[in-house]
Amino acid sequence: MNLTEQQLDEIAALRAREAPTRRATVPALEELLYQPLPVLDHGFVRVIDYMGDDAAIVQAARVSYGAGTRKVSEDAALIRYLMRHRHTTPFEMCEIKYHVRLPIFVARQWIRHRTANVNEISARYSILDREFYLPAPEALAAQSTTNRQGRGAVLEGEQAARVLDVLREDALRCHDHYRDLLEPHDAAPGLARELARMNLTLNTYTQWYWKCDLHNLLHFLALRCEAHAQYEIRVYAERMLETVQAWVPATYAAFRDCRLGAVTFTAPMLAVLRRMLAGQTVTQPDSGLGKREWAEMLAALGQTLPD
Amino acid sequence: MNLTEQQLDEIAALRAREAPTRRATVPALEELLYQPLPVLDHGFVRVIDYMGDDAAIVQAARVSYGAGTRKVSEDAALIRYLMRHRHTTPFEMCEIKYHVRLPIFVARQWIRHRTANVNEISARYSILDREFYLPAPEALAAQSTTNRQGRGAVLEGEQAARVLDVLREDALRCHDHYRDLLEPHDAAPGLARELARMNLTLNTYTQWYWKCDLHNLLHFLALRCEAHAQYEIRVYAERMLETVQAWVPATYAAFRDCRLGAVTFTAPMLAVLRRMLAGQTVTQPDSGLGKREWAEMLAALGQTLPD
Amino acid sequence: MNLTEQQLDEIAALRAREAPTRRATVPALEELLYQPLPVLDHGFVRVIDYMGDDAAIVQAARVSYGAGTRKVSEDAALIRYLMRHRHTTPFEMCEIKYHVRLPIFVARQWIRHRTANVNEISARYSILDREFYLPAPEALAAQSTTNRQGRGAVLEGEQAARVLDVLREDALRCHDHYRDLLEPHDAAPGLARELARMNLTLNTYTQWYWKCDLHNLLHFLALRCEAHAQYEIRVYAERMLETVQAWVPATYAAFRDCRLGAVTFTAPMLAVLRRMLAGQTVTQPDSGLGKREWAEMLAALGQTLPD
Amino acid sequence: MNLTEQQLDEIAALRAREAPTRRATVPALEELLYQPLPVLDHGFVRVIDYMGDDAAIVQAARVSYGAGTRKVSEDAALIRYLMRHRHTTPFEMCEIKYHVRLPIFVARQWIRHRTANVNEISARYSILDREFYLPAPEALAAQSTTNRQGRGAVLEGEQAARVLDVLREDALRCHDHYRDLLEPHDAAPGLARELARMNLTLNTYTQWYWKCDLHNLLHFLALRCEAHAQYEIRVYAERMLETVQAWVPATYAAFRDCRLGAVTFTAPMLAVLRRMLAGQTVTQPDSGLGKREWAEMLAALGQTLPD
Repeated sequence: MNLTEQQLDEIAALRAREAPTRRATVPALEELLYQPLPVLDHGFVRVIDYMGDDAAIVQAARVSYGAGTRKVSEDAALIRYLMRHRHTTPFEMCEIKYHVRLPIFVARQWIRHRTANVNEISARYSILDREFYLPAPEALAAQSTTNRQGRGAVLEGEQAARVLDVLREDALRCHDHYRDLLEPHDAAPGLARELARMNLTLNTYTQWYWKCDLHNLLHFLALRCEAHAQYEIRVYAERMLETVQAWVPATYAAFRDCRLGAVTFTAPMLAVLRRMLAGQTVTQPDSGLGKREWAEMLAALGQTLPD
Repeated sequence: MNLTEQQLDEIAALRAREAPTRRATVPALEELLYQPLPVLDHGFVRVIDYMGDDAAIVQAARVSYGAGTRKVSEDAALIRYLMRHRHTTPFEMCEIKYHVRLPIFVARQWIRHRTANVNEISARYSILDREFYLPAPEALAAQSTTNRQGRGAVLEGEQAARVLDVLREDALRCHDHYRDLLEPHDAAPGLARELARMNLTLNTYTQWYWKCDLHNLLHFLALRCEAHAQYEIRVYAERMLETVQAWVPATYAAFRDCRLGAVTFTAPMLAVLRRMLAGQTVTQPDSGLGKREWAEMLAALGQTLPD
Repeated sequence: MNLTEQQLDEIAALRAREAPTRRATVPALEELLYQPLPVLDHGFVRVIDYMGDDAAIVQAARVSYGAGTRKVSEDAALIRYLMRHRHTTPFEMCEIKYHVRLPIFVARQWIRHRTANVNEISARYSILDREFYLPAPEALAAQSTTNRQGRGAVLEGEQAARVLDVLREDALRCHDHYRDLLEPHDAAPGLARELARMNLTLNTYTQWYWKCDLHNLLHFLALRCEAHAQYEIRVYAERMLETVQAWVPATYAAFRDCRLGAVTFTAPMLAVLRRMLAGQTVTQPDSGLGKREWAEMLAALGQTLPD
Repeated sequence: MNLTEQQLDEIAALRAREAPTRRATVPALEELLYQPLPVLDHGFVRVIDYMGDDAAIVQAARVSYGAGTRKVSEDAALIRYLMRHRHTTPFEMCEIKYHVRLPIFVARQWIRHRTANVNEISARYSILDREFYLPAPEALAAQSTTNRQGRGAVLEGEQAARVLDVLREDALRCHDHYRDLLEPHDAAPGLARELARMNLTLNTYTQWYWKCDLHNLLHFLALRCEAHAQYEIRVYAERMLETVQAWVPATYAAFRDCRLGAVTFTAPMLAVLRRMLAGQTVTQPDSGLGKREWAEMLAALGQTLPD
């Protein structure tokens, strides 16, 4: 993550300003405000603004005239109850805004979450920086042999070097040509920016402002912190989860227990579970579950598949 | 608008608290924060929280590292340009949260705006207060004779008194019966709250927390500040427009000029306009416009219909 | 449910028309098309139109040029997989439109689901019919003593009769006055419709066209078919669930197993479950769960609370 | 636009199937159903399904039991009235589904419209075809010298050839490397698909199913058929507009007059207009308008800027 002097100065200027407010304020998140939190090789997440705190969720759930909170422990219990029973609207009463730098192929996954507000830098208007994502050694993985959309073993040695060389050289060449296309040649003017950008590779970094309410942010994080999410978006989600922990600790704790660490059992799984608890031995063939659903259930119970 | 001692104390407590923040802060809106602004006979609008200011719109439009603003006049010009050309996403980067007390029939119109977050007091859980809306004399209007969904002349004298008597007595009786249905009688328990509420009239007051981004708020206000909006929702919209003026003055000025005071001319209207500007006399029959569209065009030009 | 001769004729005319189409067509749903399916005393649900079928979900998931389907059993397995793993977007590719007559207090709950399209009859424009909901004897319940927003025992005998009398008389009187307010008296014109409506009670029936994609419909049904949903909205959801079964049987089967009949275990519940499966005896005090969460877990496992 | 034999067969099979339906049916759109309508060099738009017609808009606006229509001319007048006054909800009652092949940089603009349903082909799961967009000679334009995000003169001769060579070669090389990265080499497995895709350029074609209601589709078309929209997305919008004309001709006519061909005058523009109509000569300096707003007003009136 390399920022220019000017960018660092602008960030420092924002962090230096301070004003009194009557609004709900969270010191732990104020501490993080505007700071670029590094992600991947050149990406970052910055919290730009926020509205509300744990107490604002309680206040909205109670439609109260005042702060709405009672004891901290009671508030936390209410928040956990709301989370467990998917009473989602009070969580929508908090809002957060990020500035994110991310590779275009990650941005294309991310934007599928529609309930957010987005302002992306426009390559019709601006020229994109010469920065692109190259996987770190531990992230350079082979195609999974068991999961059509997953990763397998990490590539190593010459194979890894060869892959990185290709990615680096193609990205560099494409960006250099992009810049060249934009330049006037002889008497002729440069290519329109909105056309030249098509020569960039999908690992080029873009940036956006992204704003979301807490409920929809948690939905995003539940999907993107999950083990099956692509590594390159998961690391963004994990960074953002840290900011959620600083911002709304009671909500974070409930989310960790009731969403991230929770498992949904289907009706046939529940039937199997009851038989198991009654002391029966159940095997996949007599479980009524398909092989995949059976394996998912065992995994949820922390059991490994018998040979 | 009558609040209890406890409610007033809770509001005062919120207004008394103050904390330093690095976030964008608007003193004029801080001044209004938490205050109930009266609407109708028992309703109010209270600003509970906000995120962003005029500069935050500029900052997002520029996807900047710092505040993004230049000179105040340049920022205002950019905001006006964005407003005029319906570049709406930067306005979505500001957010505001209200606590509103309003009659149920107004709430039913309001909730049709779907791009907002809402927590309404639940009459399954709570008992609704004995407060209902009765029109002030100047709002007690007859059915319009020309507009199927509009109002005509104000009712007066005995007619007005009779109408108000009916509205008041029915609302009171229904609420008294509602309270009575909830009470145990002899050995029998009271009716379930979720059922008893069906006996209330549509002018009963409800309350909600309502949160919206600035773009969608302006869309709501454009529709509900308009002359054809029902008076009872328009007065809420007008109150909220005052809070927008305090919050984001440059946006407010652009909105007033480019949305509230603007008129859209259809293609055939434009053809007529060009003929008029070329000095031709155009009449409805040779305008190519239907009578209604013709009248709308004249009204937009500040001309009255010829006899 | 009483429809006029004219309404019945209009429905019959729609059902009599038939045209050839190249679109995906579902005979079982065609059979139901336009028919009013009765709900409560005067309400109904009518399927007005639909787009797509089970195969359309598969087609979209595969982004295919043709129908996208393989064998029926493979399609059903894919749909079940999508449902279990909350891959929701393919279900959004089907759409259904209903015409619903429902009490206003039910409409107020229903409208909270924002991801749908709605056209409601306007009481600013039209005069509402003299029809209102009165609970059937088995639905006339007392307030629950254990659940602040639930029902307890059914009311009976005199108590029930008294409650029904109040509800009926207040609704009738309010509607009669509503009609009277609308009428001219002596020389004076009638009250504006948009004002007169405020005199109606919340059990008055309204109507709307309501259109929704299948994913959001299932979300609505999951919440409203649930045991804690208010009876008066649950019966609508159950009727609609029947139409889903006729329309997309494979999706319905997956929904029943993986959503309606499924239970989510929180992380601490899962820890308890693993201890139980390992043969340990676990009690609430040493479970790490609160009393409420403990009771929810036992219920999910089909076990009753020990005394 | 080159489709495989198998794709053409699948499309033919869909077009050959026919079933009777009671639903609203539009023969002119049935005729287009499933056909790929060519856009750009390798893209297309195909209508996959639709719900409703012009009459369905009227039916929903009237919340009717039957078809809701009266005379065709009355329906068209109502639709035009709804369009002119932005009564948008009845238009939401129609729905259409497309299959689209489009360059990734176009997809990135398109996806910004959030109120639609999307299933895109996944490059984590599938290997993308070796097809990419290269501008036709007349679309190969220089950067505008007056508009930071627009195009100027068309490039010609050697300059054009050079640009096309760069775009073609880089796209080909990147795609060839992409395919090579996916292959096993010696003993080592190929790179994961989700990583290899980052080597593709932004003019690579992708595909998606995209479904939208008529109101939001028209909003999309109004923005993307506009002169300032980038050419490469505008040609998609124009193709889709043709399908709208076949589908809902009365809505199309109203849209053309009241949205596409309409102009919004700001309050200060209206003041100028009134002065002009009163016979005054108004110049920019005494108009109260900025230079840009003044130029926009003249353009709307079909007048050119005086020297």
